Amino acid sequence: MNAYDSLLQRSREIAIYNSAASLLSWDQETYMPPKAGAYRAEQLSQLAGLTHRLGTAPEVGDWIKACEDSLPATADAEETALREANVREWRRDYDRATKLPGRLVEEFARTTSLSRDAWAQARRESNFAAFAPWLEKILALTREQAECWGYSTCRYDALLEGYEPGARAADLTPVFADLQKQLSPLLPALEKITGAVDPARLDGEYPVDVQRALNQQIAEAIGFDFEAGRIDTTVHPFCTEMGPRDCRLTTRYDVRDFTSSLSGTMHEAGHGLYTQGLDAAHFGTPIGTYVSLGIHESQSRLWENQVGRSRAFWAHWYPRAKEVFPSLKALPLEEFWLLVNRVKPSHIRVEADEATYNLHIILRFEIEQKLVAGDLSVNDLPAAWNARFQQIFGLSVPDDARGCLQDTHWALGLIGYFPTYTLGNLNSAQLYAAAVRHEPAMVEELAGGNYGRLLAWMREKVHRHGRRYSPTELIERATGEPTRAIYFLDYLKGKYGL
Amino acid sequence: MNAYDSLLQRSREIAIYNSAASLLSWDQETYMPPKAGAYRAEQLSQLAGLTHRLGTAPEVGDWIKACEDSLPATADAEETALREANVREWRRDYDRATKLPGRLVEEFARTTSLSRDAWAQARRESNFAAFAPWLEKILALTREQAECWGYSTCRYDALLEGYEPGARAADLTPVFADLQKQLSPLLPALEKITGAVDPARLDGEYPVDVQRALNQQIAEAIGFDFEAGRIDTTVHPFCTEMGPRDCRLTTRYDVRDFTSSLSGTMHEAGHGLYTQGLDAAHFGTPIGTYVSLGIHESQSRLWENQVGRSRAFWAHWYPRAKEVFPSLKALPLEEFWLLVNRVKPSHIRVEADEATYNLHIILRFEIEQKLVAGDLSVNDLPAAWNARFQQIFGLSVPDDARGCLQDTHWALGLIGYFPTYTLGNLNSAQLYAAAVRHEPAMVEELAGGNYGRLLAWMREKVHRHGRRYSPTELIERATGEPTRAIYFLDYLKGKYGL
Repeated sequence: MNAYDSLLQRSREIAIYNSAASLLSWDQETYMPPKAGAYRAEQLSQLAGLTHRLGTAPEVGDWIKACEDSLPATADAEETALREANVREWRRDYDRATKLPGRLVEEFARTTSLSRDAWAQARRESNFAAFAPWLEKILALTREQAECWGYSTCRYDALLEGYEPGARAADLTPVFADLQKQLSPLLPALEKITGAVDPARLDGEYPVDVQRALNQQIAEAIGFDFEAGRIDTTVHPFCTEMGPRDCRLTTRYDVRDFTSSLSGTMHEAGHGLYTQGLDAAHFGTPIGTYVSLGIHESQSRLWENQVGRSRAFWAHWYPRAKEVFPSLKALPLEEFWLLVNRVKPSHIRVEADEATYNLHIILRFEIEQKLVAGDLSVNDLPAAWNARFQQIFGLSVPDDARGCLQDTHWALGLIGYFPTYTLGNLNSAQLYAAAVRHEPAMVEELAGGNYGRLLAWMREKVHRHGRRYSPTELIERATGEPTRAIYFLDYLKGKYGL
Repeated sequence: MNAYDSLLQRSREIAIYNSAASLLSWDQETYMPPKAGAYRAEQLSQLAGLTHRLGTAPEVGDWIKACEDSLPATADAEETALREANVREWRRDYDRATKLPGRLVEEFARTTSLSRDAWAQARRESNFAAFAPWLEKILALTREQAECWGYSTCRYDALLEGYEPGARAADLTPVFADLQKQLSPLLPALEKITGAVDPARLDGEYPVDVQRALNQQIAEAIGFDFEAGRIDTTVHPFCTEMGPRDCRLTTRYDVRDFTSSLSGTMHEAGHGLYTQGLDAAHFGTPIGTYVSLGIHESQSRLWENQVGRSRAFWAHWYPRAKEVFPSLKALPLEEFWLLVNRVKPSHIRVEADEATYNLHIILRFEIEQKLVAGDLSVNDLPAAWNARFQQIFGLSVPDDARGCLQDTHWALGLIGYFPTYTLGNLNSAQLYAAAVRHEPAMVEELAGGNYGRLLAWMREKVHRHGRRYSPTELIERATGEPTRAIYFLDYLKGKYGL
């Protein structure tokens, strides 16, 4: 076997073990009995160790080097370009992985698997002290990882690189500051416009089974393939892939408000459409893999917000919602639309409106940089969070469950992940604007509940490429320019008529 | 590390990969989206190959040999005995596994994973021709396995050994013939006694949610720990273990008859109690593993039949069932009890009563011996099945879905498995009789819905030993004699007053 084929085989072998680990993680969140947690951690740790060993074996380095020196020729220029991209990405992954000792990889997997349960309990009890030792340990392991990976200016960049290749804190900081600067002055007007309707008007009885059926119908309508995926229920919604035709979404239900679960479903289904749009023939290789979390999030936000909070969307779906939910009987469409677009500073990120959401990210981006740098101790985290929250949102934090304990990310060891959410918001608006510009016919089709043209455009411009282009290249090829905040701000202003 | 500790570590490492494979299989039956099937087969095949390589590596043979030559001494005689048993069982597994080439193991796993879907569709459509090529292939692979393993008199023994260590077709044949000889003359009387009530009296409305809740309550009452297990829904019910505190049961529901799902749940919960009674500290080693399918089945049958079809059981639970199922209002306990104990020859093994059930096994035992020996071709299977079924049951087979396509076993490559069901039936009656003889107080407790003493006896005499003793030794130690048919026949006669 030549070096390229050896890499292909190894890459697919690792993908199979990773997909088994994905199922173990998915099951842990959905169906696993509570006493099984300790052994589940051992299972995940052993699989992580195995794939680390397979991915960092010396022969892998030799194969990559051999391909870099001379890639076996193919008759097809497109095929050659794909192979070159695969080799480039294998090199990136290999260099990143070989810098970590296997011991650190296994300890990280075991710790984060156990800390997840500790976090869930701490959040239930709003007991930060119970989670603090876990966060301490995760931060120590994370700093150790960052030192292994290396960085040029700040340690945080080494983490960010794992989620958004090429992104640097020093580049994001001014973009985020600029966004905050332009966004904050808009908020009072948005709050006023959307505050005209009492949120209690939406309060009603929305049986879980009926919500589940409506969510599924809408997810199907936007193009999610339920023959190659499903939706289950978890505390923290997510989307995960465990094979080329096996994409699992999760959501959670509020029996007093069906829009929360529906928005969550649109969001995860947006991730799922990206996943299902990857080339199954390349599953397990870079070309068949999503390129970054910021691009992934651009797809979830697109379907959740640009589509799922539009007037056109609800003009089509609201009559159906009224049919199945008698609680909506006395609530006219325009008032309902204002409620699903309600802007109001609040405590919980995942329940935030699309405008103030970015302020939640800016807060976390600031704080996790300090935690990683060692400029903020874990014990001081709640106080620092609460003080900064007050400054940004003008709200005090009632308890840590609604403060620094609310997100699962740090408990899972996902530090440096948060900024990709705001990158996603900016890219979703920029991609949507480009799609409409390129194919204006889709506007009318979307109003008719026909999402095929928009999905096809995203498939063509984003999904099918996997990691062939960097996130920045992908956005430039699709929209003609790098990521800018202006499309998101214009989208918000246009929507509310400012 | 000494040889024993190396074996311990390797054994536990393999158990982790096997438990991941168990989850992949469980998910395939419960929640996996249909298009994911092909990749799932690759996942299972790769894991099977990995564990085969780990289990058959030359160093494993060296370690076993070293332990056989001189096992490191321990101060504790009990601990020494456990270690000796582990070494003995590792030797057995190693010898069995090293006789199979890795290529055959992987091909068998891939084929049976794919054939499962083919079988499910063939059964739905009662289309034997669609399944025949799969069975052909599985039989070829199975014969190849048997030849690798070796045998002294007949090829079938090499397969049987995998499910019931020490059992031989030549020993089972006269026992089964004797059982059939004594059982058949009883059937007309049993059919007459239990046929006094029209089965339509049970026909009613039993909502799935209510059935699920009652099943769960009863499974909990007999001692199944839902913190370390759960129940889901599948076409073919099963019990599987994916960790020391993670036991999954499945059942299926008939909305016109709640007793079918409840019996199935009692049966799988019986398996689950055995699983949960194994020593978690020894998980992944022979001492922490069930000893044979016949012993496993003795536990499922005990709770399904000796307990779950007794007058005492229903005297306690029938009032509760009447509360939740208004359909039962006009049906008195004694008539209901006759219906759940109805004896009547029928086509489907898993729905058969406890008396005629054994005739289904005897049929399969005969047929699979012929298939394996090559004395019956796959194409002739339906005709041979139907003819023999007519002779034994006096019934014609309306279609293959209710004939030779009904069971999932052959599609999964489980050939030589069926006789363990009847061994289980005989052992369940023999163990139950011994338990009552040793601790007569349990009779009154069982009538009061208190199952603790019976479970404790099984834990002590059967569960906790894992593979420490052979199945035959285990039964002799627990009951004072080898497996005999008399206890099962006496139990039947006593129950129906013959």
